[in-house]
Formats: sequence, C-alpha cells, structure tokens
Amino acid sequence: MKALQYQHVGGAPTLATVPDPEPGPGQVLLKVTAAGACHSDIAVMSMTADQLTFPLPLTLGHEGVGTVAALGDGASGVAVGESVAVYGPWGCGVCHSCAQGKENYCLRAAKEGIHPPGLGEPGAMAEYLLVDDVRHLVPLGDLDPVSTVPLTDAGLTPYHAIKISVPKLVAGTTAVVIGTGGLGHVAIQLLRAMTPSRVIALDVVEEKLELARRVGAHEALLSDTKAAERIRELTGGRGAEAVFDFVGVPPTTALAGQCAGIEADVTLVGIGGGSLPVGFGILPYETTVRSPYWGSRSELEEVLDLARQGMLDIHVEQFSLDEAPRAYQLLHDGKINGRAVVVP
Amino acid sequence: MKALQYQHVGGAPTLATVPDPEPGPGQVLLKVTAAGACHSDIAVMSMTADQLTFPLPLTLGHEGVGTVAALGDGASGVAVGESVAVYGPWGCGVCHSCAQGKENYCLRAAKEGIHPPGLGEPGAMAEYLLVDDVRHLVPLGDLDPVSTVPLTDAGLTPYHAIKISVPKLVAGTTAVVIGTGGLGHVAIQLLRAMTPSRVIALDVVEEKLELARRVGAHEALLSDTKAAERIRELTGGRGAEAVFDFVGVPPTTALAGQCAGIEADVTLVGIGGGSLPVGFGILPYETTVRSPYWGSRSELEEVLDLARQGMLDIHVEQFSLDEAPRAYQLLHDGKINGRAVVVP
Amino acid sequence: MKALQYQHVGGAPTLATVPDPEPGPGQVLLKVTAAGACHSDIAVMSMTADQLTFPLPLTLGHEGVGTVAALGDGASGVAVGESVAVYGPWGCGVCHSCAQGKENYCLRAAKEGIHPPGLGEPGAMAEYLLVDDVRHLVPLGDLDPVSTVPLTDAGLTPYHAIKISVPKLVAGTTAVVIGTGGLGHVAIQLLRAMTPSRVIALDVVEEKLELARRVGAHEALLSDTKAAERIRELTGGRGAEAVFDFVGVPPTTALAGQCAGIEADVTLVGIGGGSLPVGFGILPYETTVRSPYWGSRSELEEVLDLARQGMLDIHVEQFSLDEAPRAYQLLHDGKINGRAVVVP
Amino acid sequence: MKALQYQHVGGAPTLATVPDPEPGPGQVLLKVTAAGACHSDIAVMSMTADQLTFPLPLTLGHEGVGTVAALGDGASGVAVGESVAVYGPWGCGVCHSCAQGKENYCLRAAKEGIHPPGLGEPGAMAEYLLVDDVRHLVPLGDLDPVSTVPLTDAGLTPYHAIKISVPKLVAGTTAVVIGTGGLGHVAIQLLRAMTPSRVIALDVVEEKLELARRVGAHEALLSDTKAAERIRELTGGRGAEAVFDFVGVPPTTALAGQCAGIEADVTLVGIGGGSLPVGFGILPYETTVRSPYWGSRSELEEVLDLARQGMLDIHVEQFSLDEAPRAYQLLHDGKINGRAVVVP
Repeated sequence: MKALQYQHVGGAPTLATVPDPEPGPGQVLLKVTAAGACHSDIAVMSMTADQLTFPLPLTLGHEGVGTVAALGDGASGVAVGESVAVYGPWGCGVCHSCAQGKENYCLRAAKEGIHPPGLGEPGAMAEYLLVDDVRHLVPLGDLDPVSTVPLTDAGLTPYHAIKISVPKLVAGTTAVVIGTGGLGHVAIQLLRAMTPSRVIALDVVEEKLELARRVGAHEALLSDTKAAERIRELTGGRGAEAVFDFVGVPPTTALAGQCAGIEADVTLVGIGGGSLPVGFGILPYETTVRSPYWGSRSELEEVLDLARQGMLDIHVEQFSLDEAPRAYQLLHDGKINGRAVVVP
Repeated sequence: MKALQYQHVGGAPTLATVPDPEPGPGQVLLKVTAAGACHSDIAVMSMTADQLTFPLPLTLGHEGVGTVAALGDGASGVAVGESVAVYGPWGCGVCHSCAQGKENYCLRAAKEGIHPPGLGEPGAMAEYLLVDDVRHLVPLGDLDPVSTVPLTDAGLTPYHAIKISVPKLVAGTTAVVIGTGGLGHVAIQLLRAMTPSRVIALDVVEEKLELARRVGAHEALLSDTKAAERIRELTGGRGAEAVFDFVGVPPTTALAGQCAGIEADVTLVGIGGGSLPVGFGILPYETTVRSPYWGSRSELEEVLDLARQGMLDIHVEQFSLDEAPRAYQLLHDGKINGRAVVVP
Repeated sequence: MKALQYQHVGGAPTLATVPDPEPGPGQVLLKVTAAGACHSDIAVMSMTADQLTFPLPLTLGHEGVGTVAALGDGASGVAVGESVAVYGPWGCGVCHSCAQGKENYCLRAAKEGIHPPGLGEPGAMAEYLLVDDVRHLVPLGDLDPVSTVPLTDAGLTPYHAIKISVPKLVAGTTAVVIGTGGLGHVAIQLLRAMTPSRVIALDVVEEKLELARRVGAHEALLSDTKAAERIRELTGGRGAEAVFDFVGVPPTTALAGQCAGIEADVTLVGIGGGSLPVGFGILPYETTVRSPYWGSRSELEEVLDLARQGMLDIHVEQFSLDEAPRAYQLLHDGKINGRAVVVP
Repeated sequence: MKALQYQHVGGAPTLATVPDPEPGPGQVLLKVTAAGACHSDIAVMSMTADQLTFPLPLTLGHEGVGTVAALGDGASGVAVGESVAVYGPWGCGVCHSCAQGKENYCLRAAKEGIHPPGLGEPGAMAEYLLVDDVRHLVPLGDLDPVSTVPLTDAGLTPYHAIKISVPKLVAGTTAVVIGTGGLGHVAIQLLRAMTPSRVIALDVVEEKLELARRVGAHEALLSDTKAAERIRELTGGRGAEAVFDFVGVPPTTALAGQCAGIEADVTLVGIGGGSLPVGFGILPYETTVRSPYWGSRSELEEVLDLARQGMLDIHVEQFSLDEAPRAYQLLHDGKINGRAVVVP
C-alpha cells in the first residue's frame, strides 16, 4: 500500500510503498478515510537523531479515522465496515494512569517503548492502519471523517487543557487563547460551549483573527507588545483567569504569563521551545502553569459528542495522499487556515 | 413608609404603614427600586404558627434591589446613590461556612435567630430596606433593577444548584429541568451558558414549555406519565446525568428519580413537600440526591456577571406596591409566566 | 475441581464438583489462594427467582486472589506464577464509564448481561477461577493472600465511598461509621489514613466496638436511640460532615440522616433494604445522599498500596473450602468479627 | 508601648516606644500574648526602598495571638478577655476572592494599599495590636498562645499549599518536603494527617532531618546532588506526585522539578529568589507549578482545629520582646530549629 513516510533525519515526508499490514490477535485493521497533519509532526521532523525515541522510517499521521477492514483473533466490540476514530496516545492499559483511561500519561510507555501511531508506530497517512486494541477506537456513527479527524488531536488536546480549568472559568471570568490555528480555533469553540467565560483570542495574522471571531471569540486582538496591557484593561486590571498558549514560542509563553491574574491557570500547549518561569513574586499569587499532553479516552468520546451536537465547526483544507508532502510544506509555512487533512 | 406585610397566620399579604427605618452602626439603608415575589413566600404564608421561626408581622420580599439612601456609622465600601443588589441569606459572617461566603449555610443562624430580609427580618416589599452589613450588597452598575432583582434568588438558587453539577455535565450529557417557571426558566439559560449539556425541560403547562424553548431548551416535554420513558429514549437508555426539580411535589420528585442515570445528580429545589428515597437498589448506582438552599456571596456576583454579559433573559411581570397582593394571588394560581416583580 | 455453589433459589451453599475451566483467547486462569465471603452473597441467596439476573447454579465468591496458572492466546502483562488480585466489577471496557476505569458503573453491563465473578460468572470459591481480561488483575507482590483478599470488596467499597467525601473531610470535621464489621472496620482505618477527621463508630455489638477502637476510631458508641443526640453533642450541634452506613437497614439509614449536618455526605453502602428520603426541610440543607457500588480499577490499586504501606489491619477468620458453608452460616448470624476468608 | 520596629531600609530590627493604639469603629484591640518571627520578615528587611510597598517605620510581626483588650464602636462577636488568633492576609472583604474568604488573594488589596499587620500595618511584635475587623479573628479557646501562634502563618501557609494537592495525594503516592524548618516541619505533620502519602523530607542540616523524622517523615534525606535520583528510586521511577519547596532558592526549585512525576504538583512556597521554568518537554507531562501565598480564613480555622485534636507538634524557641532582635539574627543564620516566638 501507499504510505507517507518520514524516512531519515532531516528529510522531507515522502510517499512510499510498504507491505499491507495484517491484524494479529486482538488487533484491528482500518481502511483509513482521513488523516490529519499536525505541527507536532513537523517538530518530530526537526529533531536530531539523538532526540528521536523511535527508529525511522516512520509512517506519519497521529490523527486517524477509518472503517474497520478486518479483526484479529479475539478482537471484538467493533464490526467490519464500522466507522471509527483512533485514540492516539496509546499506553500500557494497566498502570495507575491507564486504569483511569489516561493513557496519554501512561507510567510505563516511555520505559517500555510504547508509541502512538504516527509518532513511533506506523500512522494514518496510508491506505491502511493497524490498531493494537479495540479500546483505542471510538465509534464515529454518522460523523463526517474529514471534518472529524482533527478532533482526535486538535480537538482532544485543547479539550483536555480546557477541562482542567473549567472549575476556575465561572461566570464573569476571561479566557485567553494565544494562536488561533488548528488547535486554537477549536479551543475558542470549546470554551464557548463548556464555560460562560469571555473569550479573547490573540494571533499575529489578521486572517486568523477573522476566523477566531467567526467561531465565537468575544474579542480577537493582534498578539503584539500591547496585547497584555489591553487584556488587563478589558478585565478591569485583574488579568485573565485562564490562558491557553497554542504556539509555545518564547514570546507567547512570556505573553501568557503577563495576561494571567491571581490564581489563574496558564496552560502551555504549543511545542515551540518556549517556557515560563514560576516562582514567588514572578507571577501573580498562585498562578498555575502546566504543559499537558493530548487527552484521555473518555475525553475523546466527549469531544466527539460535542461534534454530534453540532457545537464544533472545524476548518479543514483537504489533500490527497499524493498531495500530502505539500500539505506539510504549507503547514510549516503557516499557510493553513484551520487544519490540513489527508484523504487516502 | 408603605410596606407589604404578612400580619397574622393564615392572612393575606396586606399593605401597611410602618416607621421609616434608620441605619445603625455598620448598616446601610436602601431606597428599594425592585422587589421579587417568590413561591417560598407563599410557603411561609402556608405555615402554622408552630412552623414559623420568627414573629409576625413580617414585611415580605427576600429579593431586593435598591439605591443606597444612607450609611450608618462605620459603614463604608458603597456610596450614597449607588445601585446595589441584596445578598439575602444572611449569616453570622464568622463561622466556618460564612468564612467561605456560604452564609446560606451559616452554622449559627438557626441557633442565633439570624434571618434573611423578607423571611424574618423586614423585607424589600417596602419603600426602604435596612441591610445589616455592607458585605450583603453587590453593586449593580448599569443593570436594570426590575429584570435583575429576580437574580438574587430565582437566579442565584438555580446557579448554585447547577454549579454543584458542572463537573458531571461534560460534553455528551443531558440535564433535565422540571418546572420552567421563575427559577426553571433561568436554570435553562444557566445550563446553556455554563455547560455543553443537552437541556430537556418538563412542565405541565404548554405556555411554559414555549418559554422553555425560547430561552434555550433543546427539548421541552409535557411532564406526564410518559416523560421518564421519553427521557430514557432520548438518552439511549442512560438517563440524565443531572435532574433539577424546581417544583418539589411528590409527582415531580418521583419523576426526578426516574429520569436519573448511574452517578447522576438529582437536585430537589422546589419546596412542594415531596421527597425522594435513596437506598441500594432503589435508584441507579450512586445517584446522588440533595436539596440545596439559595447560594453564596461569590455566586451572586457570578450570576450578576452573567447578566452583564447579556447571557440571561429574565421574564418579568411588573406590579406596583399597591398591586403586590394581586401579584401573590396570581403567583399562587400559577398564572405568572416568569417572575413577578414589585416596584415601590 | 471443587467449587462452592448456590444451586437453587432458597438452597444453602453446597460443595460441588465442576469441570476445570480453561482460558480462551485473552483470558487468564488463576489458582485461587483466597476467596472472601460477603454479606452481599447472602443478599443474593435471599432473592426470589424473579430478582436474580443470572441463572443458577452459581459458584460463589466475588473476592478473589490467586496465582496465574495459565494464559489464553494473546493474554499478556502477567506471568504464570504471579500472585494477583481480581478486580470484581467487570464491565464492557469501552463505554464512557469503563473508559475511565469505573467498570463498576459500566453503562452497558446490565443490558449486555455482564456480571462479576461470584455474582453471575463463576466465582472464586473454587480451586480455579477464570478471569476474562488482564485488565481485571492487579499484581499483589508480597502481600499475603488471606489478609489481602477482603480488600478487593470490603476494602475497595468503603475506599470508593470515602474518597467521594475526602474534599468535605477537612480538619475539624467528623465522620461517622455505622456498622463496624467486614467493611466498617476497614472504613475506620481508611478514614484515619486518608483524612484528618475525627472518626465515630457505631455498632450494636460491644465486641465490634472494641474492634473499632482498636483499629483507630476516636469514639465507639452503641448504636441506640441516643446515638444521634450524642453525636450532635460531640460535634457542638453541627452534626457529622460524613456518615457511612455499612448496614443499610431502616433503623441505620434513619440514624444516618439524624447524624448528618449541613452539606454533609450520607453514604448508604449496606444492602439491608433501608432507605433515606431527601427533600427540602427533611434533612439539613444540602445533605447529600447516595448509594454507591464497589469501586474503580485504579482505586483497587490504591487500596492495595495502602496495605503495602502497612496502614491496614484486616481482621480475618479463615476457613477451608469444605468449611465454607459454615462460614456463610456464621456470617449470616453476625458471628464473624471482621471478614470470613476461604482458602481452597 | 514597646514595639519591635524596622525603621529604615537596611537597618536592624529595633525596640522602640510608640503610642498605645486605640480601637476605632469596628476595630478590636488585642493585648499580644505571642508573636512569631518569619523568614519573610527578613525578606522584607532585604528589600530596596523601591521594592517596599509601604512606608517605614514598620512594627514587625505578621503572626499574632492575643487577648481582646477593647472593642471599638459596633465591633461584636468576640468578648473582652477572649484569646484569639489573627488572620493575617487582610483584604477588602467584598471582592470575588474575599467573598469566599480568600483574603490572601484579594483582588483590590494591591491597588488600595491594604496590607497585613507586620507587613505594612503595625504588627504583633508589640504589647498591643490593632485588628481592623472581627472577621480577622479566630477564637483560640484553650490552645496555648506560644505554640499556636506559628500556625497563623507557618501552619496556614503549608496547609493551604497541601490542600491544593490533596486530590492528587491518594494512597500509594509520594510527597516531598524540601526544607524542614519553620514551615516544613509543620508540612510533614499536615501531610501525615491529611493524606495517606509517603512523606520524604529533604534538608541540608542533619539536625533538621532528625526533627523531620521525629514529626513523621517516612524518609529524611540530605538535599544534595543525589537526592532527585534517590527519590526516583524510592518511587519506582515515577517521581513524586507532589513536591513542596519551603526554601525557594535556585538549587531547591531546580530539585523540586527533578523530583516531580507526570501530573505532579510542584508548589514553591519559599521566598528565596529561585524559579522553575515550565514548558513542553522541560518537565514531565502536566507537571503543575505554582507559588501560593498564605491561606484563607476558613483554612486558618481548620489548622487550629487540627491543633485542638493534638495532631500538630510545633517546635518553638521562645524570646522576650527585648530579645526579639537576637531571634531575627538566629533565624537569619539558620540557627532556629522550628519557629521563633516572641512573648511581649
């Protein structure tokens, strides 16, 4: 079958022909109907050989949706022909985190070399995808594969990040979203659906601010040197109760800290190499900073339920598998408005 | 001044002339701009002499909004002429509950005979209202007194009830509102603003179901013998994750239990004499039943913030102080759609 | 192999010879090293034919510990010879509850006829036990099977119940434990380990109050008509912040309500046919009543970790498989102090 | 009266004679029975003139206990002669934070120049102390003033910090305490009382590790370059679920990050100028870092309740007011084991 692969350190993603996978005991084979391209793939392709924790070549694609093509021995719970989404952050399934469905925080994955599809295991940018266990599948029902596939990461990741802050985002509070691209434009909608907070979006590209307003941001501001001061004004001096940085470069992590108020949550999601120092007197009292990763199995079900209720409007630019290398180039250049999706 | 009083057990509310109140040390005198009429006033006027915990006559009105007319010695933090809402469930201010601003759950109020205005202390159905402490006032700013005054109880009470259940009301869940009158029609809007849940409203009056739909209920159903079964169907057999009963008569408390699913919250707000038994095998596993009372100081601020953001559409029928007895009659007869507000 | 079975409605538990089980794909066969006898087994044996949700005969024993004897095809993650505890409340593994490891609250189990071992599936009162999936096993390490096996239900069930109330059980609060038998004497220890609360134990048997004091209760009182009043006195009139009823008969559920204070948690664990009505004015404001069932996978790990730290002292009376019928008779008669454990 | 004052930037604390204070409306005058000396006083005395947010001279002492000497007009709720503790982090009393009793996070204090006693307002290192409002007092009952006074900061601050992490500190987890001095030796006891976690204490002084063991630490280790590695070993590679740094210098904040596991809480309490950067890939997934400040009114009540139950053993070195300058010198030199308390 055809697969989009990252074949050697520093190379560009390349179409290759690889053997068709076959499901072993307990495994499930999917015919891929959509696969999402993500900035974190680009981060992986920027790593040195030493930084990579898995061997190459790697079939890309950690966002995947497909129809069940075949079931391995003992695999049950889904039917051939059923449309399913893949829960990507695979874990051991039995440690204390996995026992709560938080496989993204598996306590054994690093030690045991367990990797997600597209980030170590063969990913969804191919005609077929092998899934190791039925528990990593969520039925899609009638949801459209192309507009749904970004939810498995670009939806689940902000959903998890926001859910942590829901107790703080009561009526009268303000949430700031930095970076209104693939994840950020979903985050704005999630905040509107899940909280009564006022949502302020920041980006450096006016076109993305347009998108931010269209999907529900109360305010959309240029992310410049006056942004933090403007947010202080809009919040009567208090600062925001939650700040979500989907960019994560040094200027945005610094900005995230400047927007935050007393007891605020600052959540650094973007993988841009930035960081924010925490210490007494540096940030407002008890400003809480964390950098989460993806989400849990039950949270993916919740995100898909939101889509089913029609509460999410995902902006997608569609590419064929042959066009996938160009999709990554456009993503790298900041030219994708929303999310790039590959349909094999 | 004129005041609407409940003067003796079994009597009707009556206009009376009483001395103008004067603020003592730390107290604040308000010129009342709006006062709300509530079913719980009717409950009080249905009590026997033994059940009453305070002497008569009682000036009615536990929902109050006014402008500051005078400050007692040492009272500070509000200015004469400022528009303020009254936080009604007064407590001692120092016990473990009050130290968290949960004066509705004051641990000493019952023992020390501390009562809310209109439910023991002279209430807001008068030209002037005496407030015992600045901490029981929240600035209104530009909010309209008439449409805002119901928020001090008909807004705060469902807000508190719903806030308890926010952690359970994640995406994909269902919340049921029984009774879509004064409190219920606010509850629907609060659920839409604060959670991503689907909201199903139940009432026995078609006109109130209309209102329920208009303020945001996804479904509005007649509260008949088939309602519970219909909700099971709409939830794929799971039942609702949260049920709020704003009526509280035996048929509605029973219905609340029948709608609930595993781990659901059932919150009985209405004071209709009904109850719901809890025990192993009677309700689904860990269905959680409680009967809360009003809300906290900070929650009142949050409700008013929601109103400031334009997220609440309060239906009000307006009466003068002279017409107030008729307002209570209509309320008693179920003829008020939304909330009755008296403007002295 | 030999197995203790409940063979027909109204019969006594009986030793029988049944075929040795063999593990299918994904299954695990255990050689049982200990099995616990529980009051809920007696509740099952008191049901009418209509009430039973599974066919007879039933091999008893929903508390089980064993060593891995054989692995079915594709089963991995445990090794032959390893000592493991069985997580009993089996669920579908994929629904929203199971995705969080809360298989005790599986949304599909009732509809799909999924039952725990010993409560539908063949249980642990036998030489061998078949476990359907590795995820239902937790490694025991060096823990002693006999004193550990009660933790899988008599430990896990109170642990889950108490964990719900931990946020309310801050310093200065009081927790009441009604019934200090198999579950209750563990609950006292869990409360001491997990919270700073004062623990008051109630029972009708002086010998059990002795045990309660020995395992850490600050007070142990006879559960008579003066108990509620005594608890009011001990709490300065406030009542307890949490009450756990491990008996669940009408007098104890009523007592549970009488001990509770404002915003208290009342948790009805015992399956004795009692119930507690909730409604405005019946209990203190926002007293919260629920009847939970067993616990989650990760909670079982946590209970076993407590045992590893030496924080639990489980009282056990040991019986052979041949003596098991007598163990149930003693349990029925209230003659077991602590937990009855069968060692095949 | 005599008062210990910090009189000019860079000076040493000095005994001075100042006018006796008199209570205005709503205020309470205390005769001081004990006052605690704290590292944060030393931090204040190390600030430049620009950094100070209040004028000098300053009467020191933000930990205070006394007996009520006189009540201003309208002050009620405490009686002359009653023994009370002072809640130090005074706020406005009405903002959203203060409305929940979290005056330590008052949203207006900085803007309005509201300061705690001893950190802007005249403090407790004097014969008398003026308290602005009854809500800032908590009755002591029979508690000994000298051993109790440290609880108002050295107890309340770690209590608040730990309470944030209680949901994560379930059975089987590990909590690390860095710095086992005034706050740290209380933190160890609080962790033992409030959680089932294993507690590992770190310090650079062997004598303090002795104290750590005596008050309940399961392990007490030298805080050297091997400490983080040793903690990884003790936790089976997972790291600690919560780390509390009561020192806050660069080596300890770095160490705090190295000890932390996935989803851990790192709480930086010490004011030593250190900080910890947070960003993707820098710390384990979702390690959460914050720097809280003091605690809430209700939390102070809870800490005192713990003391009443005999669960806290506070180590105190006692000084007269005349000896107070020496107490600060010893504190500065790290020569106080536990807390220094001044008895006027």
